[in-house]
Amino acid sequence: MSIKIAGAKLLIAGGASLVGSHLVRELLAREAARVVVYDPVLFDRNDSLGPLKDDPRVSLVSGDVLKLHQFIAHMEGCDGAVNLAAYMSLGFSQNPWDAVDVNIKGHLNFLESARLNKVGKVIFASSSAVYGFGIGGGISEDMPHKTEGVPAPAVAYGSSKIMGEQLCRMYKQTHDLDYLALRFSTVYGEGQHHRAANALYIIDTYERLQRGEPPQLFGDGSESKDFVYVGDVARAIAMALESDATDQAMNISGGRSITTKALVGMITDIVGSDIEPVYMEEDGRVRLKTGKGLHYVNARALAVLGWQPEVPLAEGLRRLISSLA
Amino acid sequence: MSIKIAGAKLLIAGGASLVGSHLVRELLAREAARVVVYDPVLFDRNDSLGPLKDDPRVSLVSGDVLKLHQFIAHMEGCDGAVNLAAYMSLGFSQNPWDAVDVNIKGHLNFLESARLNKVGKVIFASSSAVYGFGIGGGISEDMPHKTEGVPAPAVAYGSSKIMGEQLCRMYKQTHDLDYLALRFSTVYGEGQHHRAANALYIIDTYERLQRGEPPQLFGDGSESKDFVYVGDVARAIAMALESDATDQAMNISGGRSITTKALVGMITDIVGSDIEPVYMEEDGRVRLKTGKGLHYVNARALAVLGWQPEVPLAEGLRRLISSLA
Repeated sequence: MSIKIAGAKLLIAGGASLVGSHLVRELLAREAARVVVYDPVLFDRNDSLGPLKDDPRVSLVSGDVLKLHQFIAHMEGCDGAVNLAAYMSLGFSQNPWDAVDVNIKGHLNFLESARLNKVGKVIFASSSAVYGFGIGGGISEDMPHKTEGVPAPAVAYGSSKIMGEQLCRMYKQTHDLDYLALRFSTVYGEGQHHRAANALYIIDTYERLQRGEPPQLFGDGSESKDFVYVGDVARAIAMALESDATDQAMNISGGRSITTKALVGMITDIVGSDIEPVYMEEDGRVRLKTGKGLHYVNARALAVLGWQPEVPLAEGLRRLISSLA
Repeated sequence: MSIKIAGAKLLIAGGASLVGSHLVRELLAREAARVVVYDPVLFDRNDSLGPLKDDPRVSLVSGDVLKLHQFIAHMEGCDGAVNLAAYMSLGFSQNPWDAVDVNIKGHLNFLESARLNKVGKVIFASSSAVYGFGIGGGISEDMPHKTEGVPAPAVAYGSSKIMGEQLCRMYKQTHDLDYLALRFSTVYGEGQHHRAANALYIIDTYERLQRGEPPQLFGDGSESKDFVYVGDVARAIAMALESDATDQAMNISGGRSITTKALVGMITDIVGSDIEPVYMEEDGRVRLKTGKGLHYVNARALAVLGWQPEVPLAEGLRRLISSLA
């Protein structure tokens, strides 16, 4: 079923995140009647929500996805709900106990709360991590999950998302709860936090240039990523809520491959610097190695939702870097 | 590191299961000093352990993998430990909440207990479900996980095993806890319980023949499975404990494909019946559809452990059916 956002009450678990803050803005722009931001880090130092906190249509709940009773209470009367609450690969590496709880039990609590409150449709933030990271080229939704050789925390994160999608499928089959699972590629943009291992590289590079130090390239700089701008992601979630489509997963991605070398070049240009990067040995941090030419095909999102990315990488990077200045 | 079973103290989580009961017997035959069977269903009606319960070297603990303090206490002084405790696909379908808890949090508790007790080596019961079920032909360990089109509870189960393996890898990397993950194909044998959707088909067929009813074949009977005899599985676990190998996963399988049609023919022969099977429409139960010619290549287990299956399917089926009579 589709949810008409104008006039609707919507809950966003993990709503104080990078994607969450942009989604709140998107839903308010589409005239949502009430947006419940359910997140334990609402009042953290990043203050990702900023002035959105003062909008009278926004309710702030310092909510814990592990507390079923709290989740149920705050989802009451919601027309739709979005689950963005998750630990990522770095989190799995640093704190596997909480990561497992939040990503799996937290998601079950989200689905159960939605079912009990007869929420019309839910959106699950999945990830391109469900494919593993070892393959290059274009990856579409029917491709298998290649994990051999991938760092353990990254596979643990990816498998938590595989399981999250399957739990959605089970709630659809058993309780007819409509859902869409959106597999985000590497999300970046204003409000970028320090928990995302991949997009953080943009900020690292910027900060080095600001200090007059050369950016660092690991290996030969040919490793590639598929970045998607956070505003495009927020729009995809809104369109998924308003779509009639249900019971499927789709890539929400930039759909293009960029090497780390080219990325560093773009950031250097935006900053107006001429410092050349230095090439480094791999440093053993939790980074997600990806195949050459890696990108996630987003044709299904276009066919099903009418969505495609609109903000080019150069423009998105300019916005992110302006916000840091 | 390797564990010498003779003289050792070993804990088996889920030790009252099909595999567990054969493993207890195997470890006692190899002169283990003490075997702690840690399982909440120790005293259930199946009584899978039978007279093994009376062996003075066997300690029975009605243990819950979700109780970390209990796990820690009972693993004290253990040289090795084996985690067989898990819900399978049927369990994920019927009770996803407990399935998620036991398969993931329970496994984390197992690893943490082993770390705190300085257990020398642990064995994790993984599954060929990590590959999904959609592909035919021979599947070796470096192959990806193909889940598109597979029933949700089966993928949820498989992804719980993917995550379990990754948690082992993380404990190896962070705490140097040695482990091997064994990916069992469809396990069958005496003590077969009613929670295994695939092997249960053997018992269903046998019981229909006993009642003078024709066995049922779903679809065209060409669906194939790779069965492995439970005694061979128990031996693989013992050999894995005693091996120097660590930090890897391997298939423990029959290594051969058999169609359901051929399987029903073998059972009919063993029973001495001449009743012909009937062909049925798919009935929508949670069954794991598999590709034609599906089998799991067990060359790595031979190379690493020196293990290969020894009991042919016809012999294993005779043993299982004798135990039912």
